[in-house]
Amino acid sequence: MSKVKPQTLSGFMELLPEKQILFQSISDKIRNSFEIYGFTPLDTPIIESSEVLLAKAGGETEKQIYRFTKGEHDLSLRFDLTVPLAKYVAKNYGQLTFPFRRYQIGKVYRGERAQRGRFREFYQCDIDIIGDGALGIMNEAEIPSVIYRTFKSLGLSDFVIRLNNRKVLNGLFAILGVTDDSAEVMRTIDKLDKIGRGETQKLLAELSIGANAEKLLDILASDVPLVELEAFSGKNETFDLGLDELKAVTQHLAAFGVPDTHYAIDLTIARGLDYYTGTVYETFITAYPEIGSVCSGGRYDNLAEYYTDKKLPGVGISIGLTRLFFVLDDVGLLNTDVTTAPCDVLIIPMTDDFAPAVALATAFRTEGIRTQLYTEDKKFKAKMSYADKLGVPFVALLGEDEIAQGKITVKDMRTSEQVTASAAMLLAGIREKIAAAQDIPPIREI
Amino acid sequence: MSKVKPQTLSGFMELLPEKQILFQSISDKIRNSFEIYGFTPLDTPIIESSEVLLAKAGGETEKQIYRFTKGEHDLSLRFDLTVPLAKYVAKNYGQLTFPFRRYQIGKVYRGERAQRGRFREFYQCDIDIIGDGALGIMNEAEIPSVIYRTFKSLGLSDFVIRLNNRKVLNGLFAILGVTDDSAEVMRTIDKLDKIGRGETQKLLAELSIGANAEKLLDILASDVPLVELEAFSGKNETFDLGLDELKAVTQHLAAFGVPDTHYAIDLTIARGLDYYTGTVYETFITAYPEIGSVCSGGRYDNLAEYYTDKKLPGVGISIGLTRLFFVLDDVGLLNTDVTTAPCDVLIIPMTDDFAPAVALATAFRTEGIRTQLYTEDKKFKAKMSYADKLGVPFVALLGEDEIAQGKITVKDMRTSEQVTASAAMLLAGIREKIAAAQDIPPIREI
Repeated sequence: MSKVKPQTLSGFMELLPEKQILFQSISDKIRNSFEIYGFTPLDTPIIESSEVLLAKAGGETEKQIYRFTKGEHDLSLRFDLTVPLAKYVAKNYGQLTFPFRRYQIGKVYRGERAQRGRFREFYQCDIDIIGDGALGIMNEAEIPSVIYRTFKSLGLSDFVIRLNNRKVLNGLFAILGVTDDSAEVMRTIDKLDKIGRGETQKLLAELSIGANAEKLLDILASDVPLVELEAFSGKNETFDLGLDELKAVTQHLAAFGVPDTHYAIDLTIARGLDYYTGTVYETFITAYPEIGSVCSGGRYDNLAEYYTDKKLPGVGISIGLTRLFFVLDDVGLLNTDVTTAPCDVLIIPMTDDFAPAVALATAFRTEGIRTQLYTEDKKFKAKMSYADKLGVPFVALLGEDEIAQGKITVKDMRTSEQVTASAAMLLAGIREKIAAAQDIPPIREI
Repeated sequence: MSKVKPQTLSGFMELLPEKQILFQSISDKIRNSFEIYGFTPLDTPIIESSEVLLAKAGGETEKQIYRFTKGEHDLSLRFDLTVPLAKYVAKNYGQLTFPFRRYQIGKVYRGERAQRGRFREFYQCDIDIIGDGALGIMNEAEIPSVIYRTFKSLGLSDFVIRLNNRKVLNGLFAILGVTDDSAEVMRTIDKLDKIGRGETQKLLAELSIGANAEKLLDILASDVPLVELEAFSGKNETFDLGLDELKAVTQHLAAFGVPDTHYAIDLTIARGLDYYTGTVYETFITAYPEIGSVCSGGRYDNLAEYYTDKKLPGVGISIGLTRLFFVLDDVGLLNTDVTTAPCDVLIIPMTDDFAPAVALATAFRTEGIRTQLYTEDKKFKAKMSYADKLGVPFVALLGEDEIAQGKITVKDMRTSEQVTASAAMLLAGIREKIAAAQDIPPIREI
C-alpha cells in the first residue's frame, strides 16, 4: 500500500509529550488564576456564521480569516475570542448576570504568512468583565492584579505591567492642538518603540499636532508621568476624567497585591485599536523586551454594538499562549525540572502472575497516585529503560519475595534509592515527593 | 446602525454559565481519571491537510467532513481524534516511548444532518495505548477499569461495561460455516439489538451461515457465555486465541477494581467497524438503555497503516462528551446541587473607601479562595441580588464597624447564617464548606 506522508500543517503547533505537559501546566495555571478572581468559564464554537463573525468587517483580519461554505452556509473560523463573546453576551443578555466576568481559553485561527514563531492556530487566554450600561473603574484597577498573579504563578518574577489611559492621551492631544486626526496621532505614538523618537516626531509634525510634537513626546517620555500630567488639569474634560481614572487605578494596586516594582505608567502605550477608551495594559518580560507584550488589553465602551443597542462597556486582557510558549521555549525559559512523566509510579511485576501487581496499581490509583502498570513481554532492562525514557519518578518492583512478605520495592529514579516496605508505609513518602515536584513552576526563575 | 442577529449555528453546543461549569466539571473529572491511569495529554491541530486526514477515504464520514481550500491548501477539520493520533504516532515514531499511552479531549467536526441531540461540533474524550509491533493483553484488561473509575467519578453508579472479543466471533463464524461474508455477518449481528432476533435470523439465513443462524443466535444469547463458548475449544485457532483473551481480560477485572455487577460478557456486541480485532467495549447506563453506549472502543492491530509500514497495534476507547452531556441534561441527571457560582466569596464593601475590601479580596485570593469584589454603584439590595443570582455561597460584608474592629461579616447564603469575626478565624469554616461542596459529583445518583 502506498503511504501518505504523516505531516502537520506549517503554522500549527503540535508538541511532543514532554512539551505538551509543560504547555498544559501553563494553561492550567492561567485557568486557575482566572478562577481565583471569580471568572466563569465560557466555551463558544470555533465555527460561526460569517455574517456574525465578520459583522465588524474590514482590515487585515478579514483577509486572514478561514472562511468557507458548507452546504448553503457561509462559515468562518473564529479569529479571536472577543467577537464570539460579543455575540454571546448580546444573544444571552437576558439570562446573564452583570457585571459578567468570563474567561475563555481556546484556539483561534488566522491565516497569516507562515514564518517562524507565527501561528495560524493558536490559543488565546482571555478574561473580560462586561457591565450592563455602566462599569466602575475598580474593574480596571483589578486587571493588573490578575496579570501579576497569573505570571507569578507560572514562575516568572521579572516582568512589568505598563499602564496608560486613552482618555489621558486623547485629552492631551486636544490640549496640544490635535484636531480630527487623533486616531492617526495615536497610531503614530504606538510605533514609538519600534521606529524611535526622531522618526516619530517627524511623522507627528506632519499631522495636526504640528509644532507641538516635541512637547508631546517630552510629556510621554517623562519619568514622573502623574506629576507631569497634573500640570494639564482643568484644561480638558476628557483629560481630567482620564487622569482621575489613572490615579484610581494606580492607587489601589498595592492593596490588589501588585508591588510597585511590577507596574509603571507608560504614556507611550497607545494600543493601536480604536476600540479602547480608558485604561490600556501591556506586559513585558524585563529580560526579553524583544518578545513584545505577553499580555495586553484595555477598557472599551461598547462590546457588542454590531449585535445590540444595549451599551455593554467592559475591560479585558488576552494572553497569546501559543506564541508565549514558543518564545519561552526559544529563549530557554521552560523549566526542565518539571515532572513531564505521564505517571508518578510505574509498577513492574516480576512474576508471571500479574494479579498482585494489578491489585497494587488499583490501590495506588484509588489513592490518587498516577500509576502505570508495565506488562509487556520484555527484558527487565527494557522495562527500566521505559521508566527512564519517560522520566517516571518512582518504579515499584513486585517479585515473589515482596509478594510473600506483603511488601513492595520502590526505587526513586532520581536518587536511585531503593526501599522495600509495605505499600501503605511507602505511600506517604511517595505522595510527599510528588507534591514537592508539583510546586515546581513551568517557567524557570530568571 | 443596523444590527446583525447574534446567533449560534445549529448543531453547535453553546452553554449558559451554570451549565458550562457543570460541563467543565465533567470534562475535568474525565481528564483526571485518564491521568490517574498514566495517560499523557495530547493536543493536535483541528485543521489538517485533507490528504492526511482522508488517507483512509470513503464512506459516510467523508460526506460529512468540513473540507475547504485556503490559498492553495486543501484542508479539512478533524472528524475524530483517532486519525490525528495515527498521523502523530507515525510522524513522531522515533521520538515516542512505547507503549505510548495518550489521552486527548478535544472538539471534532461532522456536518451531520441537524436534528435534536446531534452535534456538528462535539467533544471526544479518547484514550489509546499504542504498542510498537506488539501489545500485551493486559492493556485490554485495563480498559474497563478506566471506564469504571471514570464514570464512578462523575457520580454514576448504575452502568454496565459490555465486553466481547472479535476473534471469538470470527472463530465462531468459521466453525459454524461462515465463508467469505464474515464482515456482513458481523454487521448483521451488530443490528440485533435494534431489529430483534427474528429479523436478524432471517437476514443471517440468507448469508453463508445459512441453517446455523439459529444456533449462532442461541450461543450469542447465552446467560453463561464462557461456559457456552468452552464447548467450541480446539476447533479453530482464532477462536481459541479469542477465548483465551476474553478469559484473561475478565480474570483480572476484580483486581482492577471493577465489580462483577458492572461488567458482562455480551457476545452480541460486534461494533460495526472492521477496524477492531480483539476485545471490544460498550458502556450502558442501566436506567437509560435508549441513550446507547456512552463509552465504546476496542483493540485494533494497525493504527497507522496509511502512514507507515510500522505495525502499531493498540486499544482505545472514546466518550462522546457533548452528546453525553446533552442526554444527561435531557433526562435530568445533571446535579443541580453542584456549586455553579464563578466564585466562593463575594466581597461587598459598605464604605466609600474600597481599600480594606480590596485588601481582603487579595488576602482571600492568596489563600486560594475564588473571590469577587462587588464595586458597582448600586443599592445594597441589588448587590445581594447579584450574589443570589450567581448562587455565590458566601457574601463578605465590610462596613465601618467591621473595619474599625478588624473583622468581617460573612453570610452563608444557603443557611442565611451571619457571623462577624476576623477573616483569619472565618477562613477555615469557609474553606471546609467549599471543600465539601466540591465533593458533590456533577451527575446525580440514580
